Amino acid sequence: MEQITASNGIPLYVQLKDFVYEQIRTGSWKTGERIPTEEELKERFSISRATVRQALAELEREGLLVRQRGRGSFVAKPRIEMKLHDIYSFTLDLAARGLHPESRVMVFEVVMRNLQITQTLGLRETDPLVKLVRLRLADGDPIMLETTYIPEQLVPGLTREDVMAHRLYALLEERYGLRLERAVETLEPILIDDFAARMLEVSPGSPALFVERTGSLADGRKIELSQAIVRGDRCRYLVELQRQS
Amino acid sequence: MEQITASNGIPLYVQLKDFVYEQIRTGSWKTGERIPTEEELKERFSISRATVRQALAELEREGLLVRQRGRGSFVAKPRIEMKLHDIYSFTLDLAARGLHPESRVMVFEVVMRNLQITQTLGLRETDPLVKLVRLRLADGDPIMLETTYIPEQLVPGLTREDVMAHRLYALLEERYGLRLERAVETLEPILIDDFAARMLEVSPGSPALFVERTGSLADGRKIELSQAIVRGDRCRYLVELQRQS
Repeated sequence: MEQITASNGIPLYVQLKDFVYEQIRTGSWKTGERIPTEEELKERFSISRATVRQALAELEREGLLVRQRGRGSFVAKPRIEMKLHDIYSFTLDLAARGLHPESRVMVFEVVMRNLQITQTLGLRETDPLVKLVRLRLADGDPIMLETTYIPEQLVPGLTREDVMAHRLYALLEERYGLRLERAVETLEPILIDDFAARMLEVSPGSPALFVERTGSLADGRKIELSQAIVRGDRCRYLVELQRQS
Repeated sequence: MEQITASNGIPLYVQLKDFVYEQIRTGSWKTGERIPTEEELKERFSISRATVRQALAELEREGLLVRQRGRGSFVAKPRIEMKLHDIYSFTLDLAARGLHPESRVMVFEVVMRNLQITQTLGLRETDPLVKLVRLRLADGDPIMLETTYIPEQLVPGLTREDVMAHRLYALLEERYGLRLERAVETLEPILIDDFAARMLEVSPGSPALFVERTGSLADGRKIELSQAIVRGDRCRYLVELQRQS
């Protein structure tokens, strides 16, 4: 559609959204490209500025456009889809879809007492935990800040260099014989705080997902609690549901 | 723990968080109850106001406390866990955990053309859609604003009264022989806009999940596209993952 008309009964802003949607879908407008200004769209389609604004605001909310104050609107990078299936691995999943995964180890330490974590992992209050904070990147963009706790007694001798050089799950399995068999994940939306915003290179208060994973061995022992802050503008989670009965 | 001490090597705000966490876990502080003020906590444990603030801010972010400007901090209602399993039904899932589900039909109309929706559902651009907007409540609290699109040709004669009186999936299955067999859901975090905020009784800009479901029949035909805005302060999603290989 190259025209927007009041005569077909479809709200004008919906027609404008459809127009933008088509430009992106067909590749006329490419990722990262600046789209026409509000003024240009207003002139081109002879519609009001309010109509243009409503359309752009919805497209931004839907993640198709990114608006930068004073610079205009740009075609957003498509979101990375994190598939909730199997026991997925950030590194393997990203690589499988042709993205370059990278992990930067920000913190590697042994923490002596964190009531919430030890309770969740079914440990004694005094059991030490290895705490690992990793910034995860996809094609060079930071997309996730992940804090992982592992009972120290299960991973004697684990070092920062180990986790910098190897995939964590590969280390757990190959060196320590700890094979994750089950995980429970919870997902909830949060606003990114100042620290995470700085690490993830977004504005504080941006929407993010807080994803918590508790991972267990075949015998039910819990070996991992991970808490990830995942950028909402770059990622979405996907799950396939099948009728069971 | 009734004392907070600098001598045990645990950060003071972590000790305060543990204290609050214990009060809630053991039921000393109950849902909806106001907790002691910053001033009271500062005095009681002889710690700085900054320490108290850091602990309360984290507890708020974790969803254990709700802070109301000028009124203090309150013990939050526990989040409702939406389990991503089977083809779940809002109504049946809530009822199963002892919550009273309710659905208010805000919009029931036939819309003539919505390019994004018709494309997603694999329809022709001109195929009419039944559009249904429902406010979903749990024990009287609005928790989700859901917009559902169904190809009109599949549900001839469907009325607003029908969807007010019956579960949608029961109607689809029993009256129209349309049995949902598979669904794909995507979850992404958003900030609630003004309209949804008013309906959901939260502040605009609060964190929410945008959950989109595409539901299909056994023969692969798509019969439903639902887009739900789900309150982040009242809900979390949960998925169980099992190693497949």
